[in-house]
Amino acid sequence: MQAAFVAVGSELLGTDRLDTNSLFFTKHLERYGAVLVEKRVISDDEERIALALRDLVRSVDLVVVSGGLGPTADDVTREGVARAFDRQLEVDESTVARIRDRFESRGLTMPEVNRRQAEVVQGATTIANPRGTAPGQWLEIDDTAVVLLPGVPVELRGMIESTVVPWLEKRSSGDPLRTRTLRIACEHESALEESLAPIYTEFGREGISTLAGGGEICIRIKRFDPGPVARRVEEIFGERIFGFDEESLEDAVGRLLVQRGERIAVAESCTGGLLGERLTRSAGSSRYFDGGVIAYSNEVKERDLGVAPELLERHGAVSEPVARQMARGVRDRMSGPTGSEGVAPAVWGVGITGIAGPGGGTAEKPVGTVELAIEGPAGSYAKTLNLLGDRTKIRWQSSQWALELVRRMLLGGDPE
Amino acid sequence: MQAAFVAVGSELLGTDRLDTNSLFFTKHLERYGAVLVEKRVISDDEERIALALRDLVRSVDLVVVSGGLGPTADDVTREGVARAFDRQLEVDESTVARIRDRFESRGLTMPEVNRRQAEVVQGATTIANPRGTAPGQWLEIDDTAVVLLPGVPVELRGMIESTVVPWLEKRSSGDPLRTRTLRIACEHESALEESLAPIYTEFGREGISTLAGGGEICIRIKRFDPGPVARRVEEIFGERIFGFDEESLEDAVGRLLVQRGERIAVAESCTGGLLGERLTRSAGSSRYFDGGVIAYSNEVKERDLGVAPELLERHGAVSEPVARQMARGVRDRMSGPTGSEGVAPAVWGVGITGIAGPGGGTAEKPVGTVELAIEGPAGSYAKTLNLLGDRTKIRWQSSQWALELVRRMLLGGDPE
Repeated sequence: MQAAFVAVGSELLGTDRLDTNSLFFTKHLERYGAVLVEKRVISDDEERIALALRDLVRSVDLVVVSGGLGPTADDVTREGVARAFDRQLEVDESTVARIRDRFESRGLTMPEVNRRQAEVVQGATTIANPRGTAPGQWLEIDDTAVVLLPGVPVELRGMIESTVVPWLEKRSSGDPLRTRTLRIACEHESALEESLAPIYTEFGREGISTLAGGGEICIRIKRFDPGPVARRVEEIFGERIFGFDEESLEDAVGRLLVQRGERIAVAESCTGGLLGERLTRSAGSSRYFDGGVIAYSNEVKERDLGVAPELLERHGAVSEPVARQMARGVRDRMSGPTGSEGVAPAVWGVGITGIAGPGGGTAEKPVGTVELAIEGPAGSYAKTLNLLGDRTKIRWQSSQWALELVRRMLLGGDPE
Repeated sequence: MQAAFVAVGSELLGTDRLDTNSLFFTKHLERYGAVLVEKRVISDDEERIALALRDLVRSVDLVVVSGGLGPTADDVTREGVARAFDRQLEVDESTVARIRDRFESRGLTMPEVNRRQAEVVQGATTIANPRGTAPGQWLEIDDTAVVLLPGVPVELRGMIESTVVPWLEKRSSGDPLRTRTLRIACEHESALEESLAPIYTEFGREGISTLAGGGEICIRIKRFDPGPVARRVEEIFGERIFGFDEESLEDAVGRLLVQRGERIAVAESCTGGLLGERLTRSAGSSRYFDGGVIAYSNEVKERDLGVAPELLERHGAVSEPVARQMARGVRDRMSGPTGSEGVAPAVWGVGITGIAGPGGGTAEKPVGTVELAIEGPAGSYAKTLNLLGDRTKIRWQSSQWALELVRRMLLGGDPE
């Protein structure tokens, strides 16, 4: 089974945006043994869209077109596809009604331009879009399925899952390829690659890959049965693996906190709230996260975390003693008497203070110097990080190290 | 001048790699007023490459093909291009000699397979590749230049600079195209589109596009002189425009705070630190941001922000009175006496409390109900948001609205 992907949108042909919807589509294709043979990105040009479609339906079984279904004049996917196959566009009144309802449910009047989104290529069936106004369209040209989906990733994903995936499933020859991902944080890819050598010897390289980025390395196993390889990887890496498949580092920490009935609080300077933001990405985070203090200025560090002015003066805001007091301060602050909800007090405190740059570095403490401290129920720990990269990367890596060190302490091991 | 880009390589059609060579090419195209109208990613398939080339030379002035020039059997770009235009491949002995020299200079013998890299499409001239073995090839098909370059980014970049850029420069009509972006937050794209109608009437649609996402709409003007259109857009939208070009909403708020010598503090429940994280993305944020309280649990709201337990009981944690007290609480807390650094006290407090989902919604307060309150130097303001989307989107939009409402209040206008 062969497939093609067409992303429509002049904004995807500029210098700063790339189509990423195709990656999601490809993930599902692979599971069902289908192969993506071509991707195109086309400007908002009716004739180009028509040419591409006419061309691709000749050689593939499935074409997914993303984007260009909005209400504005430069959204011309509907027109392009209609032209490709000499069909008319017909306004579907039930779709108009749905779009109008969507606006009215939010107390708004549907602008007249949105009627365009209800124009359906003759012979196509519409695909419900629970997350947006633009419905999708599905049409069959000879033996090829042509599927028009909105470019908004969250909308496209839901609609691929509700329509394209069942279609692939029905047409696929047998078992889908399955993927198992094992995740490791704060390690070097080259060291990890050496540990993987016996795996490659035993199982070959086929379907086994590593992918590094954002302070994490994913070991990805893509096979009909990834189990045996995954078990060997687990034997080798043990608790260095923080999670499987989609589990994030913050989720892994949350899971361990829940298991132990413990709670965590954060005191953040250079990360400005990022660690708290990550810890609350999961809906269940209220089971283990209380809150914290964003202590960006020294005054807040003093007033709300009990950092002594002398400490700041003597060691500077980016120093181990200050990080330690921040962790202790927020832990103590959040460990007040159990309140009306009867929740357990926080027993973990994390302090982060550092120089995220681009300014503020000195010879002694260059940009990327970050002091991390963790105050846990069985002791405390502090670490000086020397991070590389820009401000965004330094902040992210700081939060990544904080989570990974808490995780190692939660497991009872040596955080080093 | 119109151009197309073709990336050859099955590895670019998988689930985790994207072609990025095209971005480098596009950057140069734009400078010389040339427009990329299509990108294709094609598997290592001779026939598909031939079809693409034959198709593209009909409609563009320049086609750059990247990849598939290696020595191995799956490198078939040379064959594909030769087939597209019914030409032969001829071994260029001077290129063979150059490749052999390259190997020998490193004490190696040229493997026989590398002879393939010296096969040149009949009529093409070779392009020197100082960083690798694969030479590029340049051929003219009717009035279209077809340029074959290796896929290795550093090799491709050097060769674009040495050949494509001078060609563009010679053919460009004069000034390079410039881009101006005007950014608007928390408005509906369709409503905005209606306001843009007079712009389209006056200037046409050419080079004017809108791009919506993440609670923002960018109006992008790409013209030889974007000034006149930009000025008309400014006349129409006025202070609804929060920033230009790359300026983010948090940067715009920061700029206004600096102008007024005022500071801001945040009290975050459902956003868990996201607003603080955004406000500290810029290095200069210490000029206007002190910090805040992540008040995820009710206990923290009571203890650190002075939210009365009765208020929580009577109205619930997600209610206007609680949001108002959070804003007031953090403003008061951060407005303590000026400390050792002599900074001005915070005068703006923001409170956010809401139901980000997926659980926790009720009939009365469904998921997406977010209460926002702002305590400013000249008064306070509160707003109930009814947001759509998943947890990530609801949290992002909450921070987006908080920033936009603060911005409107900083400008002295009605936040509605």
